[in-house]
Amino acid sequence: MPRTIISTRSENTPPSPIRRLDPLARRAEKEGRTVYYLNIGQPDIRTPREFYKGVRRYREKTLPYSRSSGHEGLCQSWSSYLKRNNGLDISADQFVIVCGASEAIVFSFVICCDPGDEVIIFDPTYANYHGFAGMTGVNLIPVVTSSENGFAIPAREEIERTITRRTRAIMVCTPNNPTGSVCSAADLKMLLEVCEKHNLVLMVDETYREFVYDGYEPLSIYHVAPANPRVIVFDSLSKRFSMCGARVGCLITYNQKILASARTLASARLSAPTLDQAGAAFMLDRISPRYLQKAVLEYQKRRNILIEELGVSDHFLIHRSPGAFYTLVKIPVSDAEDFVKYMLTEFSYKNQTVFVAPGNGFYTNRALGDNKIRIAYVLNCKAMKKAAEVLRIGLEEYLGQKGGEDIPKSEKQ
Amino acid sequence: MPRTIISTRSENTPPSPIRRLDPLARRAEKEGRTVYYLNIGQPDIRTPREFYKGVRRYREKTLPYSRSSGHEGLCQSWSSYLKRNNGLDISADQFVIVCGASEAIVFSFVICCDPGDEVIIFDPTYANYHGFAGMTGVNLIPVVTSSENGFAIPAREEIERTITRRTRAIMVCTPNNPTGSVCSAADLKMLLEVCEKHNLVLMVDETYREFVYDGYEPLSIYHVAPANPRVIVFDSLSKRFSMCGARVGCLITYNQKILASARTLASARLSAPTLDQAGAAFMLDRISPRYLQKAVLEYQKRRNILIEELGVSDHFLIHRSPGAFYTLVKIPVSDAEDFVKYMLTEFSYKNQTVFVAPGNGFYTNRALGDNKIRIAYVLNCKAMKKAAEVLRIGLEEYLGQKGGEDIPKSEKQ
Repeated sequence: MPRTIISTRSENTPPSPIRRLDPLARRAEKEGRTVYYLNIGQPDIRTPREFYKGVRRYREKTLPYSRSSGHEGLCQSWSSYLKRNNGLDISADQFVIVCGASEAIVFSFVICCDPGDEVIIFDPTYANYHGFAGMTGVNLIPVVTSSENGFAIPAREEIERTITRRTRAIMVCTPNNPTGSVCSAADLKMLLEVCEKHNLVLMVDETYREFVYDGYEPLSIYHVAPANPRVIVFDSLSKRFSMCGARVGCLITYNQKILASARTLASARLSAPTLDQAGAAFMLDRISPRYLQKAVLEYQKRRNILIEELGVSDHFLIHRSPGAFYTLVKIPVSDAEDFVKYMLTEFSYKNQTVFVAPGNGFYTNRALGDNKIRIAYVLNCKAMKKAAEVLRIGLEEYLGQKGGEDIPKSEKQ
Repeated sequence: MPRTIISTRSENTPPSPIRRLDPLARRAEKEGRTVYYLNIGQPDIRTPREFYKGVRRYREKTLPYSRSSGHEGLCQSWSSYLKRNNGLDISADQFVIVCGASEAIVFSFVICCDPGDEVIIFDPTYANYHGFAGMTGVNLIPVVTSSENGFAIPAREEIERTITRRTRAIMVCTPNNPTGSVCSAADLKMLLEVCEKHNLVLMVDETYREFVYDGYEPLSIYHVAPANPRVIVFDSLSKRFSMCGARVGCLITYNQKILASARTLASARLSAPTLDQAGAAFMLDRISPRYLQKAVLEYQKRRNILIEELGVSDHFLIHRSPGAFYTLVKIPVSDAEDFVKYMLTEFSYKNQTVFVAPGNGFYTNRALGDNKIRIAYVLNCKAMKKAAEVLRIGLEEYLGQKGGEDIPKSEKQ
């Protein structure tokens, strides 16, 4: 038999669980049903006008590559933004601009790990980390966090137990996608101590840094450990300024060797998008703090509506997670993916249905997610209320048809 | 001693030779000298107005991710463009839109190779292929082409001799960066036969497809082997439409498994830039064939000026290469990088100097490039003539100071 054309690593990289069921949703729409999309973190808040303005006023006769490690003005603007909004003093020299935080993660895996090396993550985790690990030959080693305590970072011993000769880094996303949980300063300090002790890198995905509710303050690892050379931060404008389609992220580190390697990788792929960077720099220099304040209040409202509406039913174990715009909800089913498919193919309430992400895609041991769904609260309050109602009624009908048990009262908050 | 934080593969990935000497050029400018940049393929031809128009008329309230495998309209427009301009019948379904051809190459390496697998390339080669191979753990195995015969594709036997148990693909760039050589239909057919026989993938980088001179016609592998499922084509708008800063490339394949894997990788990194894609689709639908005809004539003129001007001297072995906008020139020095540095740091003619790329960065066995420089003819005719003159005088002075021999008459064309 001829050898297959496809590599083993590619055979082993599963399609994104968040997008895999897209065709079913499109079919539901074609059949005339309204679909509420709570499956993906595509915000609906208005992109700042300043971004579009920055793009439109770009008038170079020829659109050139930007500096491969990033438009110098953008590095400067981002640095000033962090100073102004987060009280962080980080020089523009520590930045490498990348095509979304995704590229920052790929670069960091390549820089810190050889094929077969390990990075510790916290499960449930952002599903695409697995895609990046597959591409770069890195093994992600999960430490499982529990829905019962709001997906808190586990005890130090539990993390240290997973460290092997091949461990190179610990990666954490805070505020967290998919759970909405937030690391405390003590959590971050503990993780850094573990990294110091075992000579690991601490990778912190701060894409959702400003999205914190209930009086929490935005917290960066650089608040806890200023200028620490063992740290890499991934950041992105996509969510913060509702501009996912602009591929502008950054990697920030005080480790000069990591920085040099990141610049080398950036130089091989030549440039991040020049127009997006021009727009982003213009926007960061001019955006009012009100923009983000309003956005954060809006997401908090949406979350509260979701909790209130789903709370009417005994079937949802939902946490008042303080961050990001996701929550991972436990439901009394044995196969959440089957429930998601049911919602898209069979269910209809007043000609409406809801698309949520099945939980299994967020777990390395997929079975742990079989009784969970991730909800992204990215619709306006009115739509959110309707969507939550439809979801609640949908689950009731599903349980009525397929059977299932309520979540024990003792587990409810 | 503590283990190093940086991976071996990252330690082994050298910075791009094309950009490594940038600081010297900037210093020369600061000192007041005019620097002609012939070191990088950054065209100076005007970006089509239609692209900017397409970007500016994009008016979505929120800038969303595009479909991860690419904006559907752009796939359609690109497909129509290939039909109209190249007589190729390729459905939009065979496209995956990527962040520049660079990403297409990274994806293809991941899809076809596991770490340690091999891809055959032709040396001299586009230097960044090594960066992508380093990232993905692929070993590039060079078959050396010779400046003496215009860097023609070597005989079949020479290629087959390099195939091992771990070979997964042959990759060729035509028209070629850095040599300007062009594959004939017979070359491509032969490469495909080798791939068929040994169950390999043929990767063809067609970034410069339309840039052919002296009566050559643009030739795609899909002219030679329509719909062949053993082929992946990399394409890009960066050079063709002088829009390097728009990160829009594509991967085209009829192999359904490769296509599915590419879509999975695309989905992990979410989206190519939405605005760039919108602008590109608008532009491709409207651009007049005259734009490219004029650009191609202009590059041919520049090449001819370069050849004429350097031909005055016996020191340059320069080929009338029929494609792309590069040429790899043999010069009678033992360390071309030293010559490039000399031009930037010591030499001045009427307060001008020239920045070319040292040849060693384009060879796996770097020593083979020590007597070569790559020239990108990306300046307008007037500047090109001046730059060539300055380069000629510079080399004469360098040889006068450092010694060196003329290229034997027998080697000149």
